[in-house]
Amino acid sequence: MSAETQLALDCPLPIADHPQILLAHGGGGRLMHQLIERVIGPAFANPNFDTRHDGAQLILGGARLAFSTDSYVVQPLFFPGGDIGTLAVNGTVNDLAMCGARPCYLSAGFILEEGLPVETLWRVVQSMRRAADAAGVQFVTGDTKVVDRGKGDGIFINTAGIGVIQHPGKVGPAQVQVDDVLLLSGDLGRHGIAIMAEREGLAFESTIVSDCAPLADLALGLLDAGVAVHCMRDLTRGGLASALVEIAEAAGVEIALDERSIPVYEEVHGACEILGLDPLHVANEGRFVSFVAPADAERALALLRAHPLGAGAAVIGHVEARGYPLVTLRSQIGATRIVAMLSGEQLPRIC
Amino acid sequence: MSAETQLALDCPLPIADHPQILLAHGGGGRLMHQLIERVIGPAFANPNFDTRHDGAQLILGGARLAFSTDSYVVQPLFFPGGDIGTLAVNGTVNDLAMCGARPCYLSAGFILEEGLPVETLWRVVQSMRRAADAAGVQFVTGDTKVVDRGKGDGIFINTAGIGVIQHPGKVGPAQVQVDDVLLLSGDLGRHGIAIMAEREGLAFESTIVSDCAPLADLALGLLDAGVAVHCMRDLTRGGLASALVEIAEAAGVEIALDERSIPVYEEVHGACEILGLDPLHVANEGRFVSFVAPADAERALALLRAHPLGAGAAVIGHVEARGYPLVTLRSQIGATRIVAMLSGEQLPRIC
Repeated sequence: MSAETQLALDCPLPIADHPQILLAHGGGGRLMHQLIERVIGPAFANPNFDTRHDGAQLILGGARLAFSTDSYVVQPLFFPGGDIGTLAVNGTVNDLAMCGARPCYLSAGFILEEGLPVETLWRVVQSMRRAADAAGVQFVTGDTKVVDRGKGDGIFINTAGIGVIQHPGKVGPAQVQVDDVLLLSGDLGRHGIAIMAEREGLAFESTIVSDCAPLADLALGLLDAGVAVHCMRDLTRGGLASALVEIAEAAGVEIALDERSIPVYEEVHGACEILGLDPLHVANEGRFVSFVAPADAERALALLRAHPLGAGAAVIGHVEARGYPLVTLRSQIGATRIVAMLSGEQLPRIC
Repeated sequence: MSAETQLALDCPLPIADHPQILLAHGGGGRLMHQLIERVIGPAFANPNFDTRHDGAQLILGGARLAFSTDSYVVQPLFFPGGDIGTLAVNGTVNDLAMCGARPCYLSAGFILEEGLPVETLWRVVQSMRRAADAAGVQFVTGDTKVVDRGKGDGIFINTAGIGVIQHPGKVGPAQVQVDDVLLLSGDLGRHGIAIMAEREGLAFESTIVSDCAPLADLALGLLDAGVAVHCMRDLTRGGLASALVEIAEAAGVEIALDERSIPVYEEVHGACEILGLDPLHVANEGRFVSFVAPADAERALALLRAHPLGAGAAVIGHVEARGYPLVTLRSQIGATRIVAMLSGEQLPRIC
């Protein structure tokens, strides 16, 4: 048997349903989850690699650090409320903050398509600098590659980031407890709808602006105040629903949500109805959910609401029980339904 | 004046010669240097960002760390001696080693093109794991994005890496001294020629295999042995020539090379003649140059040669004087010429 045949046989079979990469493999939902759990995760398996968290928590040279990376392929490059550069800073800053780390340093890797106007790159780089200044981080290293015309799409950016963990407790799905209260930092769906509207040329009564923002001050404010935060997650690809299903599966818990308490702007609601989207699946770039001990929930809500980026914060549910992983939603009219991870691809290249 | 017009006016004018990105902006030579120095560098300027070094040296939470990133866009994905996965590990491991750091942790960011066979991804990921094991590093965090068919090229990979700096002295262009001896760790040009041969379907008498390899043990071996290493640089895009011109400019020194002492395999020489390439400009992925105090040069050479990856090491020149930055080469026949950075694009998408 040739090495080639052996490799083909060893390739994990569940992937045989989809022998080729689909857009949905990057969508933050069920297919992406499978690809990571079955193809990438097993190869990279080691005690420091957790496929179910957006960043690694490490001890290195005596320091407690968080390390995270994301690539950004959003289309269009510029949209109401930001651009690919803003996103590339805030996305990685937020992943570090969700590990309970103060973001410090970023790297920038550019993949440029031949023919891109240099001025476009220059505008994006200026955005990255402004976003880095606003988030209190520095770019310290980078790389630039160019691919032939038709082999890229203007600009792709990867950022990786390092942060310092200043608080003793771990923050992650393994720390989730029964009765934890779920706090959402603001209204859902504006980033995804802003991108879709720009891409599809949809006009709404007022322009829907992305919520893209750095969450480190808001999230670390809870830890600094001594709130017992067990887990935090920013609600990017796949939205609130995919994030909570992933956490429920990683923690082995049932999460109960109350739809009436989940803030969604009326325009976003309307756009979702037109586009056939569920706001719970739409991507956000400046929203996160935190799992907080019940005794601290009221104080945590007040802390979030006192910050401009958390003014719309709300208690949206709680951890019901340990056992079968499940997310349920009590709807506006009082019925209860099961919330599923995003399946298929609704919103490709949203970040 | 609109914000748009203001931006256009502020865009640095030297770029007006090339208002659009060319493949050469990613080639490791003069145009890439200009793009980074004029567009990206000024925006990201801060005391920790050095555009002239492949990684950042940082102090964080009391630890001395190196941090580096590279994106990999090589075509073809598989070539004699490695693949894009091997490259994505060794390239970043080597950048960390060149900062005098022991590589520890890597991130992986994948940008996949819709339609890519999952098995191809799987083979690449297996390579990454083997290369990580061989280099003694762990993948600890990652990200996967998918772009539409025709907007990518199979697989692009970004890796970022963190290493620990264990030795007190700084290693970089600013530390270069007059009379420093230049040691090259082995023969030049095999990676670039292996890729070109594969891409163009050229057949040579024997297959030229990429030199792609992790250099941390070899490079850190010098530091561990107490050799006064002032600067190290791996010789990737742009080759030995571009690396040395960049160091000469950053350090403000004249470097003198002796062509007779620079090892190049006969097949590589022949291929370079056919393809019209200068071996000094061809990319390597397992070769580095070190600037060493003269008193330590002989010992350093012996240390390099004692390691399998440094068996072909040689003394290739020295730092002649401080002042006007220049690299000169005394040729086989005794004439002296000036060595220039790669200009234009000879070998696109070599890494």
